[in-house]
Amino acid sequence: MSKGLPKRSEDYSLWYNELVKRADLAENSAVRGCMVIKPYGYSIWEKMQAQLDLMFKETGHSNAYFPLFIPKSFLSKEASHIEGFAKECAVVTHYRLKNSEDGKSVIVDPEAKLEEELIVRPTSETVIWSTYKNWIQSYRDLPLLVNQWANVVRWEMRTRLFLRTTEFLWQEGHTAHATRQEAIDETVQMLNVYAEFAETFMAVPVVKGVKSANERFAGAEDTYCIEAMMQDGKALQAGTSHFLGQNFAKAFDVKFATKEGGLEHVWGTSWGVSTRLMGALIMAHSDDSGLVLPPKLAPIQVVIIPIYKTDEEFDQITEKAKEITAKLKSKGISVHFDKRDTHKPGWKFAEYELKGVPLRIAMGPRDLENNTIEVARRDTLTKETVDLAQIQIEEYVSEMLDLIQKTIYQKAFDFRTEMTTEANTWDEFLDLIETKGGFLSAHWDGTSETEEKIKELTKATIRCIPLDQKEESGKCILTGNPSKGRVLFARAY
Amino acid sequence: MSKGLPKRSEDYSLWYNELVKRADLAENSAVRGCMVIKPYGYSIWEKMQAQLDLMFKETGHSNAYFPLFIPKSFLSKEASHIEGFAKECAVVTHYRLKNSEDGKSVIVDPEAKLEEELIVRPTSETVIWSTYKNWIQSYRDLPLLVNQWANVVRWEMRTRLFLRTTEFLWQEGHTAHATRQEAIDETVQMLNVYAEFAETFMAVPVVKGVKSANERFAGAEDTYCIEAMMQDGKALQAGTSHFLGQNFAKAFDVKFATKEGGLEHVWGTSWGVSTRLMGALIMAHSDDSGLVLPPKLAPIQVVIIPIYKTDEEFDQITEKAKEITAKLKSKGISVHFDKRDTHKPGWKFAEYELKGVPLRIAMGPRDLENNTIEVARRDTLTKETVDLAQIQIEEYVSEMLDLIQKTIYQKAFDFRTEMTTEANTWDEFLDLIETKGGFLSAHWDGTSETEEKIKELTKATIRCIPLDQKEESGKCILTGNPSKGRVLFARAY
Repeated sequence: MSKGLPKRSEDYSLWYNELVKRADLAENSAVRGCMVIKPYGYSIWEKMQAQLDLMFKETGHSNAYFPLFIPKSFLSKEASHIEGFAKECAVVTHYRLKNSEDGKSVIVDPEAKLEEELIVRPTSETVIWSTYKNWIQSYRDLPLLVNQWANVVRWEMRTRLFLRTTEFLWQEGHTAHATRQEAIDETVQMLNVYAEFAETFMAVPVVKGVKSANERFAGAEDTYCIEAMMQDGKALQAGTSHFLGQNFAKAFDVKFATKEGGLEHVWGTSWGVSTRLMGALIMAHSDDSGLVLPPKLAPIQVVIIPIYKTDEEFDQITEKAKEITAKLKSKGISVHFDKRDTHKPGWKFAEYELKGVPLRIAMGPRDLENNTIEVARRDTLTKETVDLAQIQIEEYVSEMLDLIQKTIYQKAFDFRTEMTTEANTWDEFLDLIETKGGFLSAHWDGTSETEEKIKELTKATIRCIPLDQKEESGKCILTGNPSKGRVLFARAY
Repeated sequence: MSKGLPKRSEDYSLWYNELVKRADLAENSAVRGCMVIKPYGYSIWEKMQAQLDLMFKETGHSNAYFPLFIPKSFLSKEASHIEGFAKECAVVTHYRLKNSEDGKSVIVDPEAKLEEELIVRPTSETVIWSTYKNWIQSYRDLPLLVNQWANVVRWEMRTRLFLRTTEFLWQEGHTAHATRQEAIDETVQMLNVYAEFAETFMAVPVVKGVKSANERFAGAEDTYCIEAMMQDGKALQAGTSHFLGQNFAKAFDVKFATKEGGLEHVWGTSWGVSTRLMGALIMAHSDDSGLVLPPKLAPIQVVIIPIYKTDEEFDQITEKAKEITAKLKSKGISVHFDKRDTHKPGWKFAEYELKGVPLRIAMGPRDLENNTIEVARRDTLTKETVDLAQIQIEEYVSEMLDLIQKTIYQKAFDFRTEMTTEANTWDEFLDLIETKGGFLSAHWDGTSETEEKIKELTKATIRCIPLDQKEESGKCILTGNPSKGRVLFARAY
């Protein structure tokens, strides 16, 4: 049962939007482009946050909090940074309201204009580096390894739930180092943390690479990224890690006394992932019946649904369910017994399929008689009857959840493999991008002009220059000019 | 050693400001009234968050996220709400910047004015109730129990780190119920959660009570609060829980189909605590040497400091420290071995006193010989030499941390008892408020006029009508009019 969800094959975009709403993940708010993340959606985000936060702390980072507002003048201190963000900032110009004459509407008091207007942070490099100036004096203060969980605002013209919203939630790491190499190592380390998180927890395989100059973060020397493949053949940038060089240190005059007694600008990095990951998670695995969640991020891993006619049957099933629940909880498995009498079992089956609960256990009168349960996997939509005398339920479920996690990853991995094609002529490139999509691995002459031209002609962009790029001399797919290796093109979210 | 901290007795206010900065808790930012919460301060806030979040979930609440921006018109839908918040809101009027001619400064593009101006949320009742209208149709959708962790902005004229800042972090619970009684029960339940958190984790005793009409939340029928006593004799409101009646349900037309087939407005509550709790924590316990942290909220519970002259001594101490660390960690105790050779032991002692680490273990060559350690308590500033052969270190430390937690609470409790005085005449009231401060328990005639007059004359406000108020007929301290029981007055933060 699909709860009336549109099919992916018919309208992928509509399927996504409807799924996000019907599975209670998020919805549009009264403010254009801003979303409400609903409790069920937020509980998935919380699991992501908890795991990422753990990984950040294991790599030596601490959390802190910096202001929402940034003085307008800060933004222009780093020249390319302002270029990148100027057009998408929300600006606070006033700070007082008053009731109008009718007492019902509210007007802005024109007397209460701010002296210097404030930007609502689109990212926090400027306000953080202006702070780091006071925190860093000597090599003893380095490295400075800080992360922030926060909301940011970028005024987007076209928005989509999770994928591109005016306000979104994210984490932004901002670190300062004594040497260029140490900063590069940090940039790569955090890229690896993101890749590990995506693959091990989200079950989404990613390509690690470096962005071309066109796609680089405004103010960075190099932007590293992880790129994922969605089911419709479009790529999705799932996380970025920037090597900032000394750009922000110079813009905000952040110097440190070296061990040797010199005075040098520090080296910086920044890195972030956002609620966009929710979009990647949904689009990578879900099907026409609804969400498919990897067990490691599922707020409810197992749901137990009773099937009964009499009160006596219900009581017996409840007792059995409690036993099973206790055993599963002892292994750290999250389980929900849905005993509501307001909904029929069939309705509940469809509801938990829609919400992506990895494992469903159903118990009816015949199961009681036979000491069995019916176990249904969300990922494969298959089910089997299990004899409780033959297994230890907590071991069985635990292994099943591991298997589901692996299966989901493998399916996404195989799909990406299938959707990664070498394109060797321009005609082939044009044909593949239109008929198949996916990642096109092709030669490129390394110039921004060619990249822009290809984007103009095909809407495909260079997703990244893979870190594991093979040296292979070839000719640019468009210009025929020499190339030293293949890069990944795709249409992207 | 006090690291040059001002003394509380000389300038309490300066002592507080300096302590917050020097202990690396927070500092002022480049944006007036907005603070930077530094990593050490934030790690205490994280421990608070984790515990509160657990308590919210145990009482059935889920987290969600609502937009930062609120359409201006929403704010005027609940009449007293806009009255309360109109003067302190940040207003977004534009959403685009451009570089000026010189390419260095940034100007707001006057073409890009928003059609409807947006308010940066000072609190989220309006945007949340406008959403609840779509979430609630029937009694089956109730109760709706949602919490949000977020930043909010209130444009304050005079700000102080943690206590009153333009932007602050908080949680805000927003619940909807089918009956008046159920909403009142929720309001009281969350007040009790806050009180338990304050007393058990922050070690800060609080008075539970109800606000007078003057101090009520804008839009509430009743505001419940917990009030704490600071070391300078001023009160601090540490948390509030509001019974909203049907006010916001009516303003946003949120109705539900009852079991009986009727259609009624739902009943609401909201409740919040903020980074202000950090201010309460600091001011309740700390002393002239720095922070005093209750072990349950201390990011580092135990610090181990080696005292040595030779490398060999250092290696031996390190080995011993590792053993102790492993044992403490096995009991879930957080421990830090400070092996930096850039600072002397005496400097480190003062540093960890400043930062409020509850227990300090020092080990020198003589300790190695004797199999002893020196253990110093932060709360009492006492130390003792402990024979490791006589104890199990993990049991010893665990019990010591419990004892410190209790001792800190008891000290604050005794102080509050000492600072709570009955005032029975106006002269006595005037004298007490000037010479002693603290809570004055006094009769009041129940009118807003009298409350305002007393505030005007003494700067003291009614902190609350205690929930455990005794019935006791008396005469109002100011007017002599009849009163049915005593209320608590104090000067407050």
